[in-house]
Amino acid sequence: MANILGEKLKIVSFGESHGKCVGVLIDGFPAGFKIDLEAMQKEMKRRQPGQSSLVTSRKEEDKVEIFSGIFNGLTTGSPICLLIFNKDVDSSKYELIKNLPRPGHADLTAYFKYKGFNDYRGGGRFSGRITAGFVAAGALAKQLLKEKLKIEIYAYTVQIGKIKAKEVSLAEIKKNPEKNLVKCADLKAAQKMEKLILKVKKQNDSLGGIIECLILNPPVGLGEPVFNSLESDLAKAIFSIPACKGIEFGVGFKVAEMKGSLNNDQFYLSQGKIMTRTNNAGGILGGISNGMPIVFKVAFKPTASIGQPQKTVNLKTKKPEILKIEGRHDPCLVPRAVPVVEAMTALVIADLSLQAGSN
Amino acid sequence: MANILGEKLKIVSFGESHGKCVGVLIDGFPAGFKIDLEAMQKEMKRRQPGQSSLVTSRKEEDKVEIFSGIFNGLTTGSPICLLIFNKDVDSSKYELIKNLPRPGHADLTAYFKYKGFNDYRGGGRFSGRITAGFVAAGALAKQLLKEKLKIEIYAYTVQIGKIKAKEVSLAEIKKNPEKNLVKCADLKAAQKMEKLILKVKKQNDSLGGIIECLILNPPVGLGEPVFNSLESDLAKAIFSIPACKGIEFGVGFKVAEMKGSLNNDQFYLSQGKIMTRTNNAGGILGGISNGMPIVFKVAFKPTASIGQPQKTVNLKTKKPEILKIEGRHDPCLVPRAVPVVEAMTALVIADLSLQAGSN
Amino acid sequence: MANILGEKLKIVSFGESHGKCVGVLIDGFPAGFKIDLEAMQKEMKRRQPGQSSLVTSRKEEDKVEIFSGIFNGLTTGSPICLLIFNKDVDSSKYELIKNLPRPGHADLTAYFKYKGFNDYRGGGRFSGRITAGFVAAGALAKQLLKEKLKIEIYAYTVQIGKIKAKEVSLAEIKKNPEKNLVKCADLKAAQKMEKLILKVKKQNDSLGGIIECLILNPPVGLGEPVFNSLESDLAKAIFSIPACKGIEFGVGFKVAEMKGSLNNDQFYLSQGKIMTRTNNAGGILGGISNGMPIVFKVAFKPTASIGQPQKTVNLKTKKPEILKIEGRHDPCLVPRAVPVVEAMTALVIADLSLQAGSN
Amino acid sequence: MANILGEKLKIVSFGESHGKCVGVLIDGFPAGFKIDLEAMQKEMKRRQPGQSSLVTSRKEEDKVEIFSGIFNGLTTGSPICLLIFNKDVDSSKYELIKNLPRPGHADLTAYFKYKGFNDYRGGGRFSGRITAGFVAAGALAKQLLKEKLKIEIYAYTVQIGKIKAKEVSLAEIKKNPEKNLVKCADLKAAQKMEKLILKVKKQNDSLGGIIECLILNPPVGLGEPVFNSLESDLAKAIFSIPACKGIEFGVGFKVAEMKGSLNNDQFYLSQGKIMTRTNNAGGILGGISNGMPIVFKVAFKPTASIGQPQKTVNLKTKKPEILKIEGRHDPCLVPRAVPVVEAMTALVIADLSLQAGSN
Repeated sequence: MANILGEKLKIVSFGESHGKCVGVLIDGFPAGFKIDLEAMQKEMKRRQPGQSSLVTSRKEEDKVEIFSGIFNGLTTGSPICLLIFNKDVDSSKYELIKNLPRPGHADLTAYFKYKGFNDYRGGGRFSGRITAGFVAAGALAKQLLKEKLKIEIYAYTVQIGKIKAKEVSLAEIKKNPEKNLVKCADLKAAQKMEKLILKVKKQNDSLGGIIECLILNPPVGLGEPVFNSLESDLAKAIFSIPACKGIEFGVGFKVAEMKGSLNNDQFYLSQGKIMTRTNNAGGILGGISNGMPIVFKVAFKPTASIGQPQKTVNLKTKKPEILKIEGRHDPCLVPRAVPVVEAMTALVIADLSLQAGSN
Repeated sequence: MANILGEKLKIVSFGESHGKCVGVLIDGFPAGFKIDLEAMQKEMKRRQPGQSSLVTSRKEEDKVEIFSGIFNGLTTGSPICLLIFNKDVDSSKYELIKNLPRPGHADLTAYFKYKGFNDYRGGGRFSGRITAGFVAAGALAKQLLKEKLKIEIYAYTVQIGKIKAKEVSLAEIKKNPEKNLVKCADLKAAQKMEKLILKVKKQNDSLGGIIECLILNPPVGLGEPVFNSLESDLAKAIFSIPACKGIEFGVGFKVAEMKGSLNNDQFYLSQGKIMTRTNNAGGILGGISNGMPIVFKVAFKPTASIGQPQKTVNLKTKKPEILKIEGRHDPCLVPRAVPVVEAMTALVIADLSLQAGSN
Repeated sequence: MANILGEKLKIVSFGESHGKCVGVLIDGFPAGFKIDLEAMQKEMKRRQPGQSSLVTSRKEEDKVEIFSGIFNGLTTGSPICLLIFNKDVDSSKYELIKNLPRPGHADLTAYFKYKGFNDYRGGGRFSGRITAGFVAAGALAKQLLKEKLKIEIYAYTVQIGKIKAKEVSLAEIKKNPEKNLVKCADLKAAQKMEKLILKVKKQNDSLGGIIECLILNPPVGLGEPVFNSLESDLAKAIFSIPACKGIEFGVGFKVAEMKGSLNNDQFYLSQGKIMTRTNNAGGILGGISNGMPIVFKVAFKPTASIGQPQKTVNLKTKKPEILKIEGRHDPCLVPRAVPVVEAMTALVIADLSLQAGSN
Repeated sequence: MANILGEKLKIVSFGESHGKCVGVLIDGFPAGFKIDLEAMQKEMKRRQPGQSSLVTSRKEEDKVEIFSGIFNGLTTGSPICLLIFNKDVDSSKYELIKNLPRPGHADLTAYFKYKGFNDYRGGGRFSGRITAGFVAAGALAKQLLKEKLKIEIYAYTVQIGKIKAKEVSLAEIKKNPEKNLVKCADLKAAQKMEKLILKVKKQNDSLGGIIECLILNPPVGLGEPVFNSLESDLAKAIFSIPACKGIEFGVGFKVAEMKGSLNNDQFYLSQGKIMTRTNNAGGILGGISNGMPIVFKVAFKPTASIGQPQKTVNLKTKKPEILKIEGRHDPCLVPRAVPVVEAMTALVIADLSLQAGSN
């Protein structure tokens, strides 16, 4: 199931960074839904490379082309095949380091798993570029969720390096991230983050960070007890984003330091609906959504590709070597990961909603 | 798929806390393996309730009974059905609070998801008691991994409340946790943790904590790119343990503050094998094991059932009420979760090993 | 997936013929359904051995015991574990022929697949006895279909040896099969079939036959295009019944001799509903139910266990031997397969109905 | 799972008859395999339309284009995306009959299932044209089976209308079918079949038929007991071919008339291998391959699209109408189904072989 995700709404990922295209197939999308292609392309733009000095200089238009499943602008219920052609491919740098696995990268593990037959150019199947397909599929899921169930999903950067965003209002979360290059809802922190990234870029180094994701207006009852807890399904999908190393729901790891009397979200009645004033649980109890906003945080590691000299081992000669990575890389992949987190989240929530019979 | 986990090695969980039994079905276990029943029962004892003042007073022997799949002491390749009968059931307390969802518990979400038909006694299907089945199945997986692939798995408490264990040697990790009631490898911290739990118990309150898990001698190549990354599969399984709210691999959330030059684990050659001196990646690159020990941490929330008065809403009368939970509960479920983390980890690693054609 | 069937309504089969029990786990059954245990036991009786001279003399009460998933007589939405204990086990005959694979049986293939570790007693996992679990699970599915969707399922013998039943009315299909030992709707043919079976039994030989299955009042739209056509899903489930060697829908293999002008079921309007006067398609067009009754036929081979001398090869000595099978066997398994065909059909139709959002 | 088939080797089908393309995605194909593109294109030609007066006049080159998963001519272990563009599309005839479901076709069931949003042009997703993707994927599976496991698969027409082929030698099965337009191994019967098709074509009518499939040199042990019997998996895949209405293994439905003493294939020893002289079981015992050739027959109905006037009901006006289908159709789809049966068989056998750890 390496390249297939979901139960009722499934996506199949394919394509390579320096091959002909990256793509995604969506199976199980309901028939008769009017696709907003412009909105989809707008999502693509949020993840697109080559747009500022903060990100890789690779120039890709990332135009999504539809190959099946849409008829007269409406979904047909058949698999939707979306392709994004690779246009600005420069594989020259990769021939040189073909036998030099980059520290922090999948080069070494891919080499062993596929006995050296994997497409190593640009990381191939392990490149962040495959998330272009995630975003395209996620755009459809987001449209479906918003239109049919009034569910909205917002992801935004809350930390880059040691710079942490402060908590802001929901209104700010909705409008601020698109106003700055790091997609942070705290505009002051955003400025500092941008400066830090530029500084670290000059050092030929890279930065990690944390993204928070908020699901507004989720229905009660998403997720299953035991093996398909909502946390399980979201975590599985989120960990398929390259460079993700941690996920926590609600107060997350801080829960270790809290007593039950403080951590438990007590119930009250609001307009006939049972709600909680705190949301330490992040909207999930017993693996099932309780109707409060679902909140989680995701940790991303610094980009593994850096220009500084690093120790590696030549796979052919079996000798140690020093590697200096060239090529075009993001000094911090967090800003471009924001729409990817939203996309994967939307796909999981849409799948669970369809499983629950919603739509 | 709510109650089924795994691809080649599958487990099916069933049973309820106050029903006849909890159980587990294991499908895909290789034929001809000699089961060590004593070792399995020993694993059960590590999770067993009623053993000290730190845990619930419910007395369960948790004897595993085999109903299928074993012939002459050897596995047959057919599904192995394991049952653990519930013996010390006291449902009296639950009739009283049947309509009063406990804050922090699955009562409310279960009620909505199953329209009130779920077995609410003792949390029913959402009870930590179902993890007895996980431990029984995990015991078989651990035996298989150890005997066939020399893979060993160790989980241990690293934090309870604000008390954190210090880093200790591998030798201590292997022997210390079974020497104390909180299953911590740092014996000094263990003492403090025990005291803290007893103190908080007296306050009718509860504590959360963090468990670390270490997989020794993993083969290179476990896990898949994209949707079945090793992190994805482990996270999905671990989040099926009740009360789990976060997971992080290697340095985890700390990765946000690290630069690439520091975070990347550089390669060197050791006896013909490519290794890394640091292990910030926690043994996983590109979603695939790189042969270094796999390490992750899991956050558990404080037990939701506490004796202190809490606000809830009566599901029948739709009126607010104050709830004081009686019944027998762990003041801190972390120590008993340690063997459960090991079990779920063993099941995932065994499944992936079988998928990879090992054994 | 060897022992798991279904998507939304799943069953897991386990247990062996001469082990402690045979059993079935049902996952995904909707909550709040009142189980009619008496009706379930009645279904079991239809498949039960030891009831007449036409079937094996093994005496099994086949009482279904519920181990989970039912609370106060209602389903909870949790997995339902049903066990049928083996009581009249006589494994003495099997020790003698342990190394002598019976022609027509799974002994040889099981031996190779499980390297000799399979439980060979009574055929173990390959015994027709495992279908007791199918019937128990199917009984629940039948109740659900009938009560919620008014769908009824009837299977009946249409051929045994060379004796073929003539076509009879729907009324006769509904009442006649339970009136005779071979479960045939044509009572005259039934008498001949009974006599034939007794005659062949005396010859230490066995007979095959054909069962027809009729699904009344199916909704339009069950089944999927391409890989989960209704024929695909039904065939997959039916071929899991031991001894089944063929399945055909509607006119089946006769379709080869029909021209399109004759085979096409033309449409007409009846009370606002589009129907067909002929039903050559057996209620399925393009892999999807069209609202007409679904009809298919299933071929069963003669019981492989016969008392006549047969050639085999000793697995230990690798020498040819002559085998005379003792033990208790059905001279014709078709009558007892009738409720099994109904059960598997009910499980598939219930699964597809739940997938379609019915119930 | 409507559009996904397989466990370890999966294929995903997509595309529509009159859309941009039909396609297939192959997930789980082993890395490092050299693809013979010419052989693949040759398989495509066997199914290609427009080649003789016996088949539809639609002209499609059916050139397979590779979009991912191949690097330097070798498989990479990543998903292989294959596209076949639709070139000779004429949808004009379909606008006229948009609301007139064709008898024997999926038009009506598709309309209800997808609420009228399905792409009805040329049958859309239900067209035989989607099998172009099956053949492309199957070509890879056939190459893998032949090269790695020496398994060969042959399908051939054994009946069209009332004309039945006589049994011929294996040598003839291997070479004759490609020598005639109906792909029959009995060359005399082939001539009669060709004539009959031309005659029926003139009558604006169509014919059904039967295809036999033979798997040579299968390993012992493919298939699982219970729900994934080899018959189950093959039947599921074969019933996904449009117009298939029946499948039978070995002697098939004739088994009903055979006594056990005749039907059982007795064992003998041949060069240390246990074999059977008869092969009534079609190479499968207890759902598992026994090493003898696997044989099964598949019934195909006559093409539903015929030029004769037929009764239908207008979906808009809800009035009866008479329909005369125009457009380009095969008078008998059996010859073109032959490579499709081979392809689906190869995909199943390759999947099971990979599951068994072969390759």
